[in-house]
Amino acid sequence: MADLQRIQDNLMALAAIGATPEGGVTRLAWSELEREAHRLVIQWMKEAGLEVWEDPMGNTFGRRVGSEDLPTIMVGSHLDTVNNGGNLDGTLGVIAGLELVRELNKKRLITRHPITVVAFAAEEAVRFADTCMGSKIITGAMDREHLDKIKDEQGITGAEAMKLVGLDPDRIEEAQWDLAKIAAYFELHVEQGLVLEKLGKQVGVVTAIAAATRYRVTLTGSADHSGATPMGARKDALCAASEIVLGIERIASSEAGPTTVGTVGIMKVQPGAMTVIPGQVELGIDIRDTVPEAKQVASEKIVAMIEDVCRRRNIGLNLVKLLDDVPAVMSPTVIEAIKNSAERLGYSYHMMPSAAGHDARIMGFVTQTGMVFVPSRAGISHSPKEWTDPEDILAGINVMVEAVQEADRVL
Amino acid sequence: MADLQRIQDNLMALAAIGATPEGGVTRLAWSELEREAHRLVIQWMKEAGLEVWEDPMGNTFGRRVGSEDLPTIMVGSHLDTVNNGGNLDGTLGVIAGLELVRELNKKRLITRHPITVVAFAAEEAVRFADTCMGSKIITGAMDREHLDKIKDEQGITGAEAMKLVGLDPDRIEEAQWDLAKIAAYFELHVEQGLVLEKLGKQVGVVTAIAAATRYRVTLTGSADHSGATPMGARKDALCAASEIVLGIERIASSEAGPTTVGTVGIMKVQPGAMTVIPGQVELGIDIRDTVPEAKQVASEKIVAMIEDVCRRRNIGLNLVKLLDDVPAVMSPTVIEAIKNSAERLGYSYHMMPSAAGHDARIMGFVTQTGMVFVPSRAGISHSPKEWTDPEDILAGINVMVEAVQEADRVL
Repeated sequence: MADLQRIQDNLMALAAIGATPEGGVTRLAWSELEREAHRLVIQWMKEAGLEVWEDPMGNTFGRRVGSEDLPTIMVGSHLDTVNNGGNLDGTLGVIAGLELVRELNKKRLITRHPITVVAFAAEEAVRFADTCMGSKIITGAMDREHLDKIKDEQGITGAEAMKLVGLDPDRIEEAQWDLAKIAAYFELHVEQGLVLEKLGKQVGVVTAIAAATRYRVTLTGSADHSGATPMGARKDALCAASEIVLGIERIASSEAGPTTVGTVGIMKVQPGAMTVIPGQVELGIDIRDTVPEAKQVASEKIVAMIEDVCRRRNIGLNLVKLLDDVPAVMSPTVIEAIKNSAERLGYSYHMMPSAAGHDARIMGFVTQTGMVFVPSRAGISHSPKEWTDPEDILAGINVMVEAVQEADRVL
Repeated sequence: MADLQRIQDNLMALAAIGATPEGGVTRLAWSELEREAHRLVIQWMKEAGLEVWEDPMGNTFGRRVGSEDLPTIMVGSHLDTVNNGGNLDGTLGVIAGLELVRELNKKRLITRHPITVVAFAAEEAVRFADTCMGSKIITGAMDREHLDKIKDEQGITGAEAMKLVGLDPDRIEEAQWDLAKIAAYFELHVEQGLVLEKLGKQVGVVTAIAAATRYRVTLTGSADHSGATPMGARKDALCAASEIVLGIERIASSEAGPTTVGTVGIMKVQPGAMTVIPGQVELGIDIRDTVPEAKQVASEKIVAMIEDVCRRRNIGLNLVKLLDDVPAVMSPTVIEAIKNSAERLGYSYHMMPSAAGHDARIMGFVTQTGMVFVPSRAGISHSPKEWTDPEDILAGINVMVEAVQEADRVL
């Protein structure tokens, strides 16, 4: 069994790097604080006897040899955070990888496959509006040019940010793995939702990872006087926007897949005066699903609905697709290993999709991948209030340790 | 017939006071620039032989004697503007009053009733969020305390603003008229809407002046993650807000009176992030009608609809009534005089309600009141683009001059 005291000590030590007055953590992607967290993890990896290296892009690896000449099983997550985030998101998955090798060391077990603990760089989108960049880089899903295009709020590009902390964006190709050398990828993560807490389950067995399609929609009507314009003579951009909001709710609820969700999270109404009919409204639309086909159907229906509303109401439409990510299905072999482990260890579990994105989505495109979730209190994440019961943390790590060993046998 | 050249000269002279680089005019309520405009009008009143006085609140009057001991017929409007407004809104009505007395002088006509040209102070709501304060003061519809409560963006109260330009808010009671001394009130104004332009009519005969009921509504749902929260588990404040927007559109269009309009001009969505379900939405609702009962019915139906939406969706509701003004019906005698005058002079006219508020609404509660509208190009007002064809300005003033003389005979 994993050592809860050691896990908590590790969590506290990492939480101190970038600690905020509110009790949260700020360790942005490719920042000096992210690098400091990686250096601490490198120290722990070395203490656990791993062969350690950092690639030129800021991903950290710690390798434990296997008994056979096989590709490696990777276990890990990321160490960067959002602004004033929690101390579990990402961090817990890296510590789970360390606990795995510590447990194997303690039991003097040598797995068939080498084990590689990984701490990915730059998973959170908060600084550069792109996610999972470390895992995208090692799987060849990002090119050098992209690092010049992405910019933070200060106008610093991804490549510049990397250079400022001693990394080398020009060596991106060196960081790309030969994918044949990866047998599987495991990631433990906090759920960031309410499902496990509501069901009273200790462990989530992730079956698929949702991805988003996002649109920015600008509606242009006519900003006429609210008193002097009869109802029949209006081109009210907000009435059109309201039809669209309810259309998205309807399509996501009952006209797409059972796992589809659709949200209008952003709405900006101009000119925004009591006596003026809204002449322009900007919407930000987020559509997610674990099933690529269902997301496609939902997106097409939503775009058609938007076009229909604008045609009927004589409203100008500008629709920009901001993102169209692909959901990832988890490996049946890995899912089975996680599920069997939870059963053997006597933990309650629930098979569930992940609504949020993770490095495991990127890894899921190139290798057999699985995730273990632990409950988030009140579903809160990306906040100093992020919290998981220590018993659940221990359950999640124990399931992970057991599941990697089962996968090692069957893969 | 009125003198178009003189009218244009007067308009240009007033437009120079507070002229903006964009070609508009900024002469805010109870500002030094408003006072300067009043001083210019006082000079013109004196040139027209009127007995002139300014009350302690900034209203300017010019009286022409009548042949009988009768209450006076008032003719005028206001001289303050919105920020970067047009050069006709208000100003044109004061110049129409001057043209009336100039015409009577030219023809050496003495009316039965004395004529009083009035330039009201502080009609626009832009500085102090209250309208028609000059006419409210002379009709006794505003008290001294109110002038300490209203504040501009710099925190200057109405009373302080008045003192800064040499007026005396403490003498408010002196400014109140004995209402028995007012026989009627006439106001010429730009339409500020599209009705006359669309119909191709030169003159509008106003039958009633709409008033507004306004609400601020705050909806509180739950700001959960857009990906991790199934459609059935949401409390989306924006979906509730959207139902309310469409409910208001439906009620105003087909479930209240034919003259009812309802608008959501303000909507603020929090937290306003792509990945977060809106947890709070604030709405600003403006309901207008010329028929008090229809506005009452519409307001009650809208409030009931809002409560129903929030109950069904389990959304928290805070509803504040910001305003509940009373529409004013114009005097049948004055309407008839205006209509007859347009017919006699051969101008095309249209009987219509005023959607916007005017000093004539306030005067309409205390005396026989009527308004003449002239077309606004593209319905635009409160803008440097405010424009009316000079031929239509002349038509409006000629109708006004004729109508006052008819009213003088029949009242």
